[in-house]
Amino acid sequence: MGLQHLSRQLMHRCDELGAISDEAGRLTRSFHSPAMRRANTLVGGWMCEAGLEVKEDAVFNLIGRWPCERLRAKTLLLGSHLDTVRDAGKYDGPFGVLVAVAAVSALRRERVRLPFHIEVVGFSDEEGLRYQTPYLGSRAMAGTLEKKDLLRIEEKGIQRAKRKPGELLAYAEVHIEQGPVLEAEDLALGVVSGIAGQSRIRVEYIGTAGHAGTVPMAMRQDALCAAAEFILAVESCGPTATVGQITAQPGASNVIPGRVVLSLDVRHLADAKRLRAVAALRASASAIATKRGVRTLWGVVQESASVACDPTLTRMLKSAVRPHQARVLMLPSGAGHDAVAMSAICPVAMLFVRCKGGVSHHPDESIKSADVAKAIAVLRDFILLLARRHA
Amino acid sequence: MGLQHLSRQLMHRCDELGAISDEAGRLTRSFHSPAMRRANTLVGGWMCEAGLEVKEDAVFNLIGRWPCERLRAKTLLLGSHLDTVRDAGKYDGPFGVLVAVAAVSALRRERVRLPFHIEVVGFSDEEGLRYQTPYLGSRAMAGTLEKKDLLRIEEKGIQRAKRKPGELLAYAEVHIEQGPVLEAEDLALGVVSGIAGQSRIRVEYIGTAGHAGTVPMAMRQDALCAAAEFILAVESCGPTATVGQITAQPGASNVIPGRVVLSLDVRHLADAKRLRAVAALRASASAIATKRGVRTLWGVVQESASVACDPTLTRMLKSAVRPHQARVLMLPSGAGHDAVAMSAICPVAMLFVRCKGGVSHHPDESIKSADVAKAIAVLRDFILLLARRHA
Repeated sequence: MGLQHLSRQLMHRCDELGAISDEAGRLTRSFHSPAMRRANTLVGGWMCEAGLEVKEDAVFNLIGRWPCERLRAKTLLLGSHLDTVRDAGKYDGPFGVLVAVAAVSALRRERVRLPFHIEVVGFSDEEGLRYQTPYLGSRAMAGTLEKKDLLRIEEKGIQRAKRKPGELLAYAEVHIEQGPVLEAEDLALGVVSGIAGQSRIRVEYIGTAGHAGTVPMAMRQDALCAAAEFILAVESCGPTATVGQITAQPGASNVIPGRVVLSLDVRHLADAKRLRAVAALRASASAIATKRGVRTLWGVVQESASVACDPTLTRMLKSAVRPHQARVLMLPSGAGHDAVAMSAICPVAMLFVRCKGGVSHHPDESIKSADVAKAIAVLRDFILLLARRHA
Repeated sequence: MGLQHLSRQLMHRCDELGAISDEAGRLTRSFHSPAMRRANTLVGGWMCEAGLEVKEDAVFNLIGRWPCERLRAKTLLLGSHLDTVRDAGKYDGPFGVLVAVAAVSALRRERVRLPFHIEVVGFSDEEGLRYQTPYLGSRAMAGTLEKKDLLRIEEKGIQRAKRKPGELLAYAEVHIEQGPVLEAEDLALGVVSGIAGQSRIRVEYIGTAGHAGTVPMAMRQDALCAAAEFILAVESCGPTATVGQITAQPGASNVIPGRVVLSLDVRHLADAKRLRAVAALRASASAIATKRGVRTLWGVVQESASVACDPTLTRMLKSAVRPHQARVLMLPSGAGHDAVAMSAICPVAMLFVRCKGGVSHHPDESIKSADVAKAIAVLRDFILLLARRHA
């Protein structure tokens, strides 16, 4: 079975998985739901066909193992997640699991012997749909669940999913890009340099509501005008920065907004740059408020540090990509991935595959079969490069 | 009974009327509701005490008539409205009716004889709460109800409320300012130059939604950034202009807004200036869209022309105000009033009384008893000036 065939098979499998949902008429799979149990059964069957020993761990991560003959060998972990957001596309998550199954399947048919075990994992929760907290599957495996997570999750004993220190050689993940860069650069694949750190902030402006017809312009403290000025400051602040939510109160066409709340999302691969930009935006927010005679509130909702991909693994991924396209593009991941959680216990690497229009988290997610064949080949070659190093 | 006494009585009456509501715990009176019937009964009693002949017309406007002895005399109409918005203050509307009752009461006690009839009117609907269309009482009296209004209103025969052409000498209305200008200028009273015309427009920006972490800043078509730029253009466009409502879709903190809808409200006493500003804003909206590679839609929701107050009546009001304060301030009304509807059949004039913080349409509406005394005196003197002219 050649790469073209494996690629077509993978596309069919994504279609089949995409039909397994907790909701009629749209694709939704949340942690340990009936659809997730059916998805694990289906993908477990495909793992079995590829010659893997299949099991589920204590947090319902699906694991297909290909043991090597060496005693005390470490384990190379490959995969992604099988859960989805609400009304999802077919590829965000499952695609990475099935690329790993296909690459392993190719290597097994070539009767390759590896100096490490391989496990293909389908994580049980990355999107955080059920408990509004992401990376449940991978954090359980990394042993980094917090007390509040354990209290939130009804299932007992999930701490047993934790892997022993030093047991894992590395974690490598293939994922759709979820952005438009590869498409714009006309490249099938990109090697991920790291996963951006993120600040989420709630910004509020409090002015004075009033009649839109009777308060002269010079006497206003319009909270929405202050917010508008801030939104433009966010746009030009440097890092990737977004205001995605805004509400103006009281919210009538003939009333000056007295209160505006907005969300700020700032991401950068360099944590210092992100934190500098956030500090500068906080100063902007205050300066705008002072100038306009309104008040502003600033509340950090969430802050996470960036994760660098392992230089050695990344060099190997680049070598594996090189034969397939004119140039190797390194790009940061602005979205979070299971690799963030896994980086707590082993080195990580990631490969991006272009997706149509950069669309993700939407039924319109789309990838090309020809790109999929390249991704399978690259992951296969990456495993061989890693084997050579550890021979 | 002197002016101070009439003023205190008026304040008590506003309190008493303010307790008559269709809703428990807040003040709400809508067209022909149980509370409006009780309000008409109460105010009708006060009109009767003032020596007026009380009736209700076909659209439930409460009318107290003081006829003169002249045959074929015209009628001077004084008043305002007795309905309210939802969760209203006590003064917007009823205050103007009760000032008219107090001024007439003072003149009758002075045994003045007038060359015209006087009618004090409490209009049955100005705020438009019940049918979402304003000036029902005054438009019925002016004979300018449209077919769609008649279809909407369940009561039959309201067209009989129309007054004969030439029957009315003038309409004069006292109202709280609903804005902060008089307070800022430290003046109790202001003479209204006219009522601003208004354009209400629905503006939409359509960009491209996308992942807040993965779409590079340079590749975005962020509908909210376009809207922010437009909001600042509105703020500096010249006339009184307000964006009161804004919604961004899909409205998640980690998604670039793909679609923003906002309301635009532009008002000016000079219709040509208003229309020029609206045209300039429309051009700005398009220029912003073109520059940013997004689309924009522009929908006029409502457009109303300005109404000029009558120069002769306004001169008389100014003469009547002059003895009471250091200077006479003319100011436009940015809010609509029954005078807008009445201007279709007779000359109109308006007097504003300062209100605390410019607040209206809110339980915090507040006025000073000393200002009320001045308002009663000015309306009384205005009537005498008008009588002299028509003697």
